[in-house]
Amino acid sequence: MKAKREALVSLFTAMREGKVDEDIIDLLLLINSINGVYTTSSCSGRIGIMEEPDLGAKPLARWLIKVHRPMEFEEARGALRNAEKGLIFLKSQPPIFHIVAEDLEGARRLHELGLSSGFKYTTFKVVSKRYLVEINATEYLTAPLGRDGRILVDDEYLSFAVDLGNDMLRRSKGRLPRLEERFRALREELGGDELFYELAERFEVKLR
Amino acid sequence: MKAKREALVSLFTAMREGKVDEDIIDLLLLINSINGVYTTSSCSGRIGIMEEPDLGAKPLARWLIKVHRPMEFEEARGALRNAEKGLIFLKSQPPIFHIVAEDLEGARRLHELGLSSGFKYTTFKVVSKRYLVEINATEYLTAPLGRDGRILVDDEYLSFAVDLGNDMLRRSKGRLPRLEERFRALREELGGDELFYELAERFEVKLR
Repeated sequence: MKAKREALVSLFTAMREGKVDEDIIDLLLLINSINGVYTTSSCSGRIGIMEEPDLGAKPLARWLIKVHRPMEFEEARGALRNAEKGLIFLKSQPPIFHIVAEDLEGARRLHELGLSSGFKYTTFKVVSKRYLVEINATEYLTAPLGRDGRILVDDEYLSFAVDLGNDMLRRSKGRLPRLEERFRALREELGGDELFYELAERFEVKLR
Repeated sequence: MKAKREALVSLFTAMREGKVDEDIIDLLLLINSINGVYTTSSCSGRIGIMEEPDLGAKPLARWLIKVHRPMEFEEARGALRNAEKGLIFLKSQPPIFHIVAEDLEGARRLHELGLSSGFKYTTFKVVSKRYLVEINATEYLTAPLGRDGRILVDDEYLSFAVDLGNDMLRRSKGRLPRLEERFRALREELGGDELFYELAERFEVKLR
């Protein structure tokens, strides 16, 4: 499976460069060790403050702060000082995984697994030559805070919104152990992938 | 197709009871008139203020106001006076369509059609005995405004957030004509559905 080999090399290279979210490294290794299954892009869930030049101008957006754990009030407050131009949003986003299966039956298993682990926005993104499942949850917060460097909320509101975003993040991340458990069961069933273990050794990846 | 018959009866009954969003009735009729294709649930896009008793307690949520067109500032302000208990959110949500196709090939056509009309969150929700495609967009606003009847934002912020939510709604609804155009082309290709026209006549549905 050439595509899986390429995906694994990308993952291991990104890990070496410290570009993979620490708190899901073990889970990503687990998923990729399953026969016929591999991940493309993933995020462990995050909260932060984003500046968007204009509505829908996502490619030009920049994070003033972005963390993969609950954010401190002071961090948020400090980051807002760097706001310059465009819409300012507090964003909280759940973990998200893009996972490819070799065939439709495998994709169905991933889909079920995501839903039954509490990730209610789990869908099939691509159903053609390859099968791509997105495991995603509903805890999205998109709170506008101001525009063009001007903050329209006070500290009490900011603290309230940051707490809420943190609660949502904790809630969605709280499902990761259940997800891991189910992927472990799936590996039992579908078996481990020799290609994975061979490449992991070559890249000196620590497996637990 | 027994399932389509039931879906059509539901749709025509809901229309008779005034429960279908006016601004997408013609589009829904068009989609359902296509051979082998029918809608289950849909929304034309909306903005409003929602009260949720607790995080994740969606079934217990209630709308203080909800409209399928841009919302006036005074409407929002008035609705907030009725806030009582739980988290208060300003929400703006794009149009969403759940559409069933008879086979995988049909579902793929719907999926492509949604994406190419600018609905970037178009996915396959179910890929089993039936094929369900969700046509959905990215313009979601979820702005917390306060809790337990207490509003934590001022009028300037509320006006800013309502304007932003309205802009997002206009932007996503602005894609509906393109979507309609592509469904019209799909009907040319797949043909009209006799069952649809027969039931529409029985329910005295006006077709344009």
